Amino acid sequence: MPDEPREAVIRATCRALCTHGYANLTMQDIADETDLSKAALHYHYDTKRDLLIAFLDSLTSWYEGRLEDLEGETAPERLSSLFDECLSHDDGGDDDTDGDADYPAFHTALMEIKAQAPYDDAFRERLAAADEVLLKRVRGIVADGVAAGAFADVDPDVTAELVVDVLAGGHTRNVAVGRSLDDTRDVLDGYVDEHLLAADAHTNRGPDADAGADTEPSDAETPTDSTQAETEPEAGEAEASR
Amino acid sequence: MPDEPREAVIRATCRALCTHGYANLTMQDIADETDLSKAALHYHYDTKRDLLIAFLDSLTSWYEGRLEDLEGETAPERLSSLFDECLSHDDGGDDDTDGDADYPAFHTALMEIKAQAPYDDAFRERLAAADEVLLKRVRGIVADGVAAGAFADVDPDVTAELVVDVLAGGHTRNVAVGRSLDDTRDVLDGYVDEHLLAADAHTNRGPDADAGADTEPSDAETPTDSTQAETEPEAGEAEASR
Repeated sequence: MPDEPREAVIRATCRALCTHGYANLTMQDIADETDLSKAALHYHYDTKRDLLIAFLDSLTSWYEGRLEDLEGETAPERLSSLFDECLSHDDGGDDDTDGDADYPAFHTALMEIKAQAPYDDAFRERLAAADEVLLKRVRGIVADGVAAGAFADVDPDVTAELVVDVLAGGHTRNVAVGRSLDDTRDVLDGYVDEHLLAADAHTNRGPDADAGADTEPSDAETPTDSTQAETEPEAGEAEASR
Repeated sequence: MPDEPREAVIRATCRALCTHGYANLTMQDIADETDLSKAALHYHYDTKRDLLIAFLDSLTSWYEGRLEDLEGETAPERLSSLFDECLSHDDGGDDDTDGDADYPAFHTALMEIKAQAPYDDAFRERLAAADEVLLKRVRGIVADGVAAGAFADVDPDVTAELVVDVLAGGHTRNVAVGRSLDDTRDVLDGYVDEHLLAADAHTNRGPDADAGADTEPSDAETPTDSTQAETEPEAGEAEASR
């Protein structure tokens, strides 16, 4: 299928998924979101599963791009932008062709796909790729921040695993028990403020609060996926971005 | 339905759920796990949804009991026991009538129910009750530990939200991308060791690592759900329990 109609079909799949959920989704529901007949859709994709796999592939690329282009000069600013991307529940205003309109419904639909992953290797493989993209991005930002002295001397691997767990848990609790994504954001902001920012970046702790204040060179691995030079950490900016 | 056969049916529901998953589960699958005919099962429960609701009610009570009876004298020990309960993937040896045999399958089935929660208020209500049980228990243990000086002077509410997010995220990533629950355990043990234990309980940090080392009385709320008197924190024990 040529790129342009292919993208239109994938966006239609996303919209149909958000409206109907995974369990109830039919090829007709997806066709109804396009200019194509159900027969024409079947010509390119045999089943709704094939369409969902194309959608998951597209989602991972899109997500990778969004995480690559995070706003912010410093590591704390870029981490804050990453939280914005992952915990947004903005459902509109902007053009719905970008595929993330109606975000809460989107996360609900994605949770259904996650729940089916143990029964479907193709789903699991693509979800694992998206998980790895996020993990790698957080790890890179944390390593940059440690190297620049903006963050305390933490282990970027362990910190990234914790952040990705909190994000995944926040999404799950949002879908399963209706807990606000804003609460997840508060948890992460509190974690960064209390445990991740270097001591001299704190504005709300006493002079004897020195976790990670040692100034030895970081033993963190050399960041490999940073695309921006680290600038001097600015405590004021880091705080202002919260 | 009298208590005893009711419990047998609920255990059968759990086993059938683990074997077949939520989406494919039928009343016949559940009947096959009991001595009852499908007709007899229908006499007591109209639909598989009714059975799942009874199962979720039972699960919350069982879970509350398990979290109430955590092993350990000190708060760090009890928190470690709570992690054991929540992240165990022991699937056997012990009697399978306790309802948690085949734990990975159990979490997969529960993830399917979580994904359906936005479409079913009865599911969501019961999942929210279980979430609150866990949150309250973690909050109580942290508040106890802060009051006893075993934990740094953290906010029990914020800490409990982070711990419950990590647990939920660990379960989700385990189901969706096959990441080990042992890795989630490592994340939580690292968090406790680096950020939660009071400074004098650390064995692997320098003498100037004093986050939370101030000895002012805790301003944490009075613990309300503690059932055990706090004993003196023992750094050695806390480390040994990891």
